Amino acid sequence: MRLAILGYGNLGRGVEYAVKQNPDMELVAIFTRRNPEDLKVNSNAKVLNVSEISNWKDKIDVLILCGGSATDLPVQTPEYAKMFNVVDSFDTHARIPEHFANVDKSAKESGKIGIISVGWDPGLFSLNRLYANSILPDGKDYTFWGKGVSQGHSDAVRRIEGVLDAKQYTIPVEKALQAVKNCENPELTTREKHTRECFVVAADGADKSRIEKEIKEMPNYFSDYDTTVHFISMEEFKANHSGIPHGGCVIRTGKTGDGSRNHVIEYSLKLDSNPEFTSSVLVAYARAIFRLNKEGKTGAMTVFDIPPAYLSPKSNDELRAAML
Amino acid sequence: MRLAILGYGNLGRGVEYAVKQNPDMELVAIFTRRNPEDLKVNSNAKVLNVSEISNWKDKIDVLILCGGSATDLPVQTPEYAKMFNVVDSFDTHARIPEHFANVDKSAKESGKIGIISVGWDPGLFSLNRLYANSILPDGKDYTFWGKGVSQGHSDAVRRIEGVLDAKQYTIPVEKALQAVKNCENPELTTREKHTRECFVVAADGADKSRIEKEIKEMPNYFSDYDTTVHFISMEEFKANHSGIPHGGCVIRTGKTGDGSRNHVIEYSLKLDSNPEFTSSVLVAYARAIFRLNKEGKTGAMTVFDIPPAYLSPKSNDELRAAML
Repeated sequence: MRLAILGYGNLGRGVEYAVKQNPDMELVAIFTRRNPEDLKVNSNAKVLNVSEISNWKDKIDVLILCGGSATDLPVQTPEYAKMFNVVDSFDTHARIPEHFANVDKSAKESGKIGIISVGWDPGLFSLNRLYANSILPDGKDYTFWGKGVSQGHSDAVRRIEGVLDAKQYTIPVEKALQAVKNCENPELTTREKHTRECFVVAADGADKSRIEKEIKEMPNYFSDYDTTVHFISMEEFKANHSGIPHGGCVIRTGKTGDGSRNHVIEYSLKLDSNPEFTSSVLVAYARAIFRLNKEGKTGAMTVFDIPPAYLSPKSNDELRAAML
Repeated sequence: MRLAILGYGNLGRGVEYAVKQNPDMELVAIFTRRNPEDLKVNSNAKVLNVSEISNWKDKIDVLILCGGSATDLPVQTPEYAKMFNVVDSFDTHARIPEHFANVDKSAKESGKIGIISVGWDPGLFSLNRLYANSILPDGKDYTFWGKGVSQGHSDAVRRIEGVLDAKQYTIPVEKALQAVKNCENPELTTREKHTRECFVVAADGADKSRIEKEIKEMPNYFSDYDTTVHFISMEEFKANHSGIPHGGCVIRTGKTGDGSRNHVIEYSLKLDSNPEFTSSVLVAYARAIFRLNKEGKTGAMTVFDIPPAYLSPKSNDELRAAML
């Protein structure tokens, strides 16, 4: 399987590493919008400007799109599905139906597969919502995120005047989590589910109380949450807050039988690196769509459409003997 | 969708309840080896002797086999796959390849689907092993069972002379579980992973110390574990130990990137009723194979082969909009 990457940020670097863990795959090319010579990569893949991508039409089995959901993927995924099997991690939930339709049109015309919204949420969390809902129709879903870094919230804090750097952690409220696991079926407000904790490096002489107030009152991002703000030195920031950990859990509780028996299905992730884990998911789904396309399947797909066995390098016989 | 049950024990009763939670399904018949008039059922399904089953060839979309793995299913699943789409919960891991081959032959000849080893282990736990292994190739798997009732171990205790009734609980060792979740990658012996706790009602005048010794030294069942035995009254037994709870978790820990980042994927179940939950899984997979068979698919399958979307009564559009 010959893979290629478009976009060499955290996610692209993660894919590059993930491919090395899978002996049935080879990373043949990394496409970038930057000057290829400026990229310092960690593999033997060719580094090329994206303008050359159409020359690789028959030399790549799956192209993994590592751009952002806001502006890159809505354009790139339908565009490159005209030439390649493609995988993306599109995560703007509200725009998924529209994005799916656009990718489906391109991929059906080219005879390729475009799988969208691959990762852990959307992705593995979605899968677990689907399995749990199908098994326990009479129940209630809960998703908690964290403890982990929200990139969007960290960016928002960094944009405040006098902030040199910042990291924002989303933290599930333990009491809420326990109530859910105890099958109390709580109705939880935004504030009751998660708290937010910010580590901020302020510029010399900046007004810290003004910064803290601006964070805590920021609409959409912080005003609906209980937020704690810590001011720390750049040294401490670099030493303790340079990672991008994340995680969370999807829980469904439900009843069976005469209604007296409760069940709890929980799927949880604890990730040292959000982009590296997401990349590992992208690579497994690249394997799946490559195989499905060889069998003649085309069009847009999501994780809901992929038979799990297609993700594994093992044969069906091996899987049944060893993992069932 | 017209469903039928063969075998009306705990699992069959669970399926009968589960069907009521799914408006797209109807339970049309319950087949039994007993005298149909002796069954007290909880639905409007016809209760019939299994000798009449071939008359129902065109009146049933999926037959759910609710017998045991030791002697019933190895015969029944290949046999009834000649007439019906069938679902079973075959759980003798070592014999899965052989059972799969037998069911595959029958189902290919009849043009039906036979899905085997559906439930939570094998079943949902297997799925999670497969997903987690595909995503984190460089990692380690752990499965813990409990806290829950092991029927086989409870039966073994009940066969000891002087025991009127007994329940055996399998309990994961908290210290081992924590070491796994902390990515310490421990090598765990049988004794280090689980303990066993027995609640026993002894006959008047029975030698309790002899019973306790016989339990603790029983090969295969107890001798490799730390076992606690409690003698209790029949009243206490009935009040506190009449349920069949179970559960457990599948954990995979693995590394990505340059090898410095750890990830933990955990899937856990906490079930008030093992058979009712298993039944709910069987019913969801009945829906899936009914649909796949309508699309022309035939032969034996496992949970590894089923695209998740087929389990849900919702349309693909609805799933993408609401659950992704």
